[in-house]
Amino acid sequence: MPFETNADDTLLAKASELRQAFHLDSVERDKQGGRPVDQIRLLKQSGLPSAQIAREYGGQGASWLTILRIVREFAKTDGSLAHLFGYHHLPLNLILFRGSSAQKEKWLTGSAAGNWIWSNSGNALSKTSSGERTATGWIINGSRPFSSGSHVADYIQISWENADGARLTAAVPADREGIVIENDWDGIGQRQTGSGTVRFVNLEIHEDELISAPDVPLTPWSSLTSLLQQSVLLNVFVGSAQGILKEGRDYTTTSSRPWIYSGVERHVDDPWIKRQYGDLYIRTLAATELADKAARSLDAAYAEGPSLTAADRGAAAIDIATANVYAGEVGLAVSSEVFEVMGARSATNANGFDRFWRNVRTHTLHNPAEYKKRTIGTWLLTGEFPVPAIYR
Amino acid sequence: MPFETNADDTLLAKASELRQAFHLDSVERDKQGGRPVDQIRLLKQSGLPSAQIAREYGGQGASWLTILRIVREFAKTDGSLAHLFGYHHLPLNLILFRGSSAQKEKWLTGSAAGNWIWSNSGNALSKTSSGERTATGWIINGSRPFSSGSHVADYIQISWENADGARLTAAVPADREGIVIENDWDGIGQRQTGSGTVRFVNLEIHEDELISAPDVPLTPWSSLTSLLQQSVLLNVFVGSAQGILKEGRDYTTTSSRPWIYSGVERHVDDPWIKRQYGDLYIRTLAATELADKAARSLDAAYAEGPSLTAADRGAAAIDIATANVYAGEVGLAVSSEVFEVMGARSATNANGFDRFWRNVRTHTLHNPAEYKKRTIGTWLLTGEFPVPAIYR
Amino acid sequence: MPFETNADDTLLAKASELRQAFHLDSVERDKQGGRPVDQIRLLKQSGLPSAQIAREYGGQGASWLTILRIVREFAKTDGSLAHLFGYHHLPLNLILFRGSSAQKEKWLTGSAAGNWIWSNSGNALSKTSSGERTATGWIINGSRPFSSGSHVADYIQISWENADGARLTAAVPADREGIVIENDWDGIGQRQTGSGTVRFVNLEIHEDELISAPDVPLTPWSSLTSLLQQSVLLNVFVGSAQGILKEGRDYTTTSSRPWIYSGVERHVDDPWIKRQYGDLYIRTLAATELADKAARSLDAAYAEGPSLTAADRGAAAIDIATANVYAGEVGLAVSSEVFEVMGARSATNANGFDRFWRNVRTHTLHNPAEYKKRTIGTWLLTGEFPVPAIYR
Amino acid sequence: MPFETNADDTLLAKASELRQAFHLDSVERDKQGGRPVDQIRLLKQSGLPSAQIAREYGGQGASWLTILRIVREFAKTDGSLAHLFGYHHLPLNLILFRGSSAQKEKWLTGSAAGNWIWSNSGNALSKTSSGERTATGWIINGSRPFSSGSHVADYIQISWENADGARLTAAVPADREGIVIENDWDGIGQRQTGSGTVRFVNLEIHEDELISAPDVPLTPWSSLTSLLQQSVLLNVFVGSAQGILKEGRDYTTTSSRPWIYSGVERHVDDPWIKRQYGDLYIRTLAATELADKAARSLDAAYAEGPSLTAADRGAAAIDIATANVYAGEVGLAVSSEVFEVMGARSATNANGFDRFWRNVRTHTLHNPAEYKKRTIGTWLLTGEFPVPAIYR
Repeated sequence: MPFETNADDTLLAKASELRQAFHLDSVERDKQGGRPVDQIRLLKQSGLPSAQIAREYGGQGASWLTILRIVREFAKTDGSLAHLFGYHHLPLNLILFRGSSAQKEKWLTGSAAGNWIWSNSGNALSKTSSGERTATGWIINGSRPFSSGSHVADYIQISWENADGARLTAAVPADREGIVIENDWDGIGQRQTGSGTVRFVNLEIHEDELISAPDVPLTPWSSLTSLLQQSVLLNVFVGSAQGILKEGRDYTTTSSRPWIYSGVERHVDDPWIKRQYGDLYIRTLAATELADKAARSLDAAYAEGPSLTAADRGAAAIDIATANVYAGEVGLAVSSEVFEVMGARSATNANGFDRFWRNVRTHTLHNPAEYKKRTIGTWLLTGEFPVPAIYR
Repeated sequence: MPFETNADDTLLAKASELRQAFHLDSVERDKQGGRPVDQIRLLKQSGLPSAQIAREYGGQGASWLTILRIVREFAKTDGSLAHLFGYHHLPLNLILFRGSSAQKEKWLTGSAAGNWIWSNSGNALSKTSSGERTATGWIINGSRPFSSGSHVADYIQISWENADGARLTAAVPADREGIVIENDWDGIGQRQTGSGTVRFVNLEIHEDELISAPDVPLTPWSSLTSLLQQSVLLNVFVGSAQGILKEGRDYTTTSSRPWIYSGVERHVDDPWIKRQYGDLYIRTLAATELADKAARSLDAAYAEGPSLTAADRGAAAIDIATANVYAGEVGLAVSSEVFEVMGARSATNANGFDRFWRNVRTHTLHNPAEYKKRTIGTWLLTGEFPVPAIYR
Repeated sequence: MPFETNADDTLLAKASELRQAFHLDSVERDKQGGRPVDQIRLLKQSGLPSAQIAREYGGQGASWLTILRIVREFAKTDGSLAHLFGYHHLPLNLILFRGSSAQKEKWLTGSAAGNWIWSNSGNALSKTSSGERTATGWIINGSRPFSSGSHVADYIQISWENADGARLTAAVPADREGIVIENDWDGIGQRQTGSGTVRFVNLEIHEDELISAPDVPLTPWSSLTSLLQQSVLLNVFVGSAQGILKEGRDYTTTSSRPWIYSGVERHVDDPWIKRQYGDLYIRTLAATELADKAARSLDAAYAEGPSLTAADRGAAAIDIATANVYAGEVGLAVSSEVFEVMGARSATNANGFDRFWRNVRTHTLHNPAEYKKRTIGTWLLTGEFPVPAIYR
Repeated sequence: MPFETNADDTLLAKASELRQAFHLDSVERDKQGGRPVDQIRLLKQSGLPSAQIAREYGGQGASWLTILRIVREFAKTDGSLAHLFGYHHLPLNLILFRGSSAQKEKWLTGSAAGNWIWSNSGNALSKTSSGERTATGWIINGSRPFSSGSHVADYIQISWENADGARLTAAVPADREGIVIENDWDGIGQRQTGSGTVRFVNLEIHEDELISAPDVPLTPWSSLTSLLQQSVLLNVFVGSAQGILKEGRDYTTTSSRPWIYSGVERHVDDPWIKRQYGDLYIRTLAATELADKAARSLDAAYAEGPSLTAADRGAAAIDIATANVYAGEVGLAVSSEVFEVMGARSATNANGFDRFWRNVRTHTLHNPAEYKKRTIGTWLLTGEFPVPAIYR
């Protein structure tokens, strides 16, 4: 089978096992939404949440290529768990990029030891939470939308605006008083990501929990957060395409019936079915190759550490934007077109094959392909890299 | 607004009113599935179920162009009701094509007077019900899948195979003992069409209820049933494209926010948004024009009556297949791509915009575009028309 | 055969005859470029150049639907002659829109009687010719690019800028001293349109030859010129698609060989060949239907005369832009994809099938689909029609 | 600039120099067709014709990845030279796959020393030349079409059918009496490949020139010839896409003018232009990555030598078919769509940008994407690899 996990890689082998466990009720859980409690427990037990943390903090020092392939592996059956696992690395690395030595020591070491799950509640496009300075920190009130993962997290990275408009970011344990998970996520896809509202009710933040001071400038290195996010998204798309292609193939070979006018005994002997699967595979493989290339560029940029130059960061940004746009298109196309070769009886809620299209459709909206294309085109035409910022 | 109903046409004006009534809870009913009881009541009250019946039987003699535009109108918000209304005409016209004078008199006149709703339970690809000859008719046992509309019908056209393999068709009141509506339809779309199983438990059929004897050959005229079915399907697709385009436009102009890097105050001023809506409109209009052309061809063939020639039937078949393929592609594309210009917040279950894609995706599987393309290509290359049969 | 000319229409029947005559050496003339002298002579003999002129001036009062179908008919084999015939109507109607009664009397009556061919040399994007006021008119020097048809015209409409920057337009006989046809058109397609430079060397313009004074405001009616131009272009695209589809079909049925792994004796029996031709036909028919709709909208607007409202002009503009974008896409796609079903031996210069792609590719560049899509989208989103101006 | 040659690789650096030399008159030579005499001389002087020959025969042992990147490099400006250089390796490797030790010694060593250019004249789909057995070999009469490269070759591999229908293949010096190059290649693209007819007039073949006896079965290893051919083709497509993308970009940044309604001063600041170039780049990069993956698969299979298994050969075949289909689509799309962002003035014969589309269009017809898609789909659905044979 194509797109098999490399069983020689211990982490990917674990991911493959988890994917099979997630698969048992991924259709059912897609319907329910809510919290994938058992699955998060399995994930933590597997040790994968600490895989990417550097060895100096007790982690396993896995490459982004491996981490993103794990995202893909999960997305083959469950885009939500792929998303949760992938996004977990954003706050973790914000600590690495912007945290103090003490914070890194505390949170990275703690995460590595405890396989803590991180989430964030600080959507940059919504200024809907505010903080008031106290003697020892801040009191936060308000809320933040699109807080993926906060419903299952051990730690949450939150953001708010101060009275002067400055945006601050801190990390807090998820069970701290004053954090209210609204469980109001109502997306048509990515149903268990808990990407709804987190409300803050007189939430206390201590000074040593502040990660990102507004007067610390963004560097190429610390701006890699955007590229991590883009990378997670694109690998959810690629894994979704791979997953539905496999589910489709299995359905077609076991359950589909030849069309009445086909003149063949087996559906797979219809030239149409062969061609269509060939076509779906070609695009899925192209997306996979671009995703791998982008992950390697990310690894190369990440390896340079704080001395990462704007040009090297830019080169990775272009590769990631390229892979992202293409992966989104392919994820949408494959998850819709595959129905044509499975046939009328495949399109039931019991089968749940439509979750892939709903997942990719939902997730691709979070940063428009149009603007990534412009970014790539600008670079091609003028040599200018995107100014590092959210989503690029 | 484009794709407005022609208010000068009384029937279309009524359809437009009904569409607005259906729209009140079309999102909610899509989630529930089941039976659109109130909506069917309104439909019957409107008199539209008898619109297409010939005046000689007390009907209103509406053209197919009008009937199919009503299908489109309903599909703008509710693909299920569009489907139910459209398919209602298949058994009605089977009576016209193959029934005896007495049957026409009874059933067509009765339908015109009572605005009866017809459905069918005789899927031609499944030989899962059988009949046993009795002195006065037949006793039917077994079941039939894909029995759209049987859950709300007044009359059901059913089919079965006799012991010798011959396929027979009859019409019976929906409340006859022995008809069990399983309510097991589980499609990802067209959720209120009730396209599940009807079971027959010692169902008695009387001799004068038999419509289609196996030894009566199919004529170009009586084979128009397939073209009616194709026509209903394609207009569900066209109406769906028109409907989501309108809902998308309304959402974009009232609720979407400009992208952070757009540099515009209003989302509609982003060149991207303009272009994308332009592109969606172009394809939707092309689908509409092809649908109109196909409906006119159907009207022309239908008007010829029993003397319809194979060539004239063939010409209509080609126009309808052409419109069908294109409408399916456009329905799928528009209902998926429109999300990109509505933005991330649009993709919620509360908004329910995804029902259009699910409806079209479900419905397009019922007869593969691939085979319709081959039919068209064969005609273009060799001049041969499709041999009249189910789905072509 | 699809897309046959309606033989009941005398004008279209003549156009069909001419198309057959043009076809005899259309491949050869595409290679040569230059002037289609014999073909223009035949065109004038046919009386078609006066077909659209109103009956009051001695013309035949043909509708735009007919005129544009003639453009399509020519484009089935020769995009250049289609272009020349179509563009001929722009200066003719500028006289109608903006000329004095005396000018109409002189030029329209003269044209109707003599079947004069008109062209223009006044590209609005290039201010490369200038005029100096004299006692009786102007002396023009400089040049104008993209002067389609000036190499075969009887009359040329020319434009220049005065010293004060005002743009003026006049009509002059093509053989007037001071008009130099450079014959430098080097396009990859539309090779016999003579769309190169016309140079003006002390060209004398008399006062009564001035058509368009700069202080006469553009009205919805007089701005129809842009829509005429758009309409000609789109019908060249549609005719090209129809033409290559027919040539491809004929080649496939007579000359193509089945692929070695096809298992069929005749190429046309390969499901792939059937499907592909079906697919090409579907899009070509959609383009044709949109073109007909647009032509009818143009006829409706034109029929209103000088009282044409902005809204009615706008509605026609949207229909024409819609048809134009779609026709361009289809013309390009069909003229490229058809090679796949003709096979390797078809792609020779002797066959000349590539002229269709080169013609459409060349001609579609003259006003970007992107901006027409934006225009359509703006209208859909806000209800605003395009401000009448060149190209819209 | 993307798609730059790796200057650290000596062979690629030489290829880049040659590409620049070829570029000086590639537009002009495309018009002329015929023989690229000077370019072939430069190619031989560069030593690249012997790059792929194994070191044991005096060659440079270059990988297929390098050889195919050289093909790509040439195709950036001149598809014909890319084709000639690439196809040169087919007969060379047929000697390796099927030749005797003496033949390898003579011809591979000779080629390595003399940088001989090889071609073939043995189109497998045409049985138009026949051989008569003599005491010392055969006398060949007849002709063979599609004999790419025979007009510039030092050695030609020819095929014929014996009286018993068996197909034989031999190698002969191109200047042997009895070989007549017809110079009748008339393709719309790949104009200097000399892909026309070679006629054989009592051509003598000696016994020791026979390479491929009909009774020697095809092995996975010796069947790699088909994959070499597919690989050359696909890299011509990829290089063409890269080449026109670069030429387009350069034209756009230096010569294109902003559209009148764009509101920007520089064409590259139009969001449309950015997006479109972004989009063209994404697909071109995807094609490049698939081509690299396919080349590595080919290298892996080739490295296994005569013990290559059917499964490993099959895996390479799938990768190559995948890359081939995608590269063809991208080559066609990019070389056509780029005109839209260059603008109307770009589409001239003097610029010659259309040679890319004509080259790819011509070359993609030589083995239908449809059948490669079926091959890939069959493997995906059933695990079966294509039976090794011509074109697969």
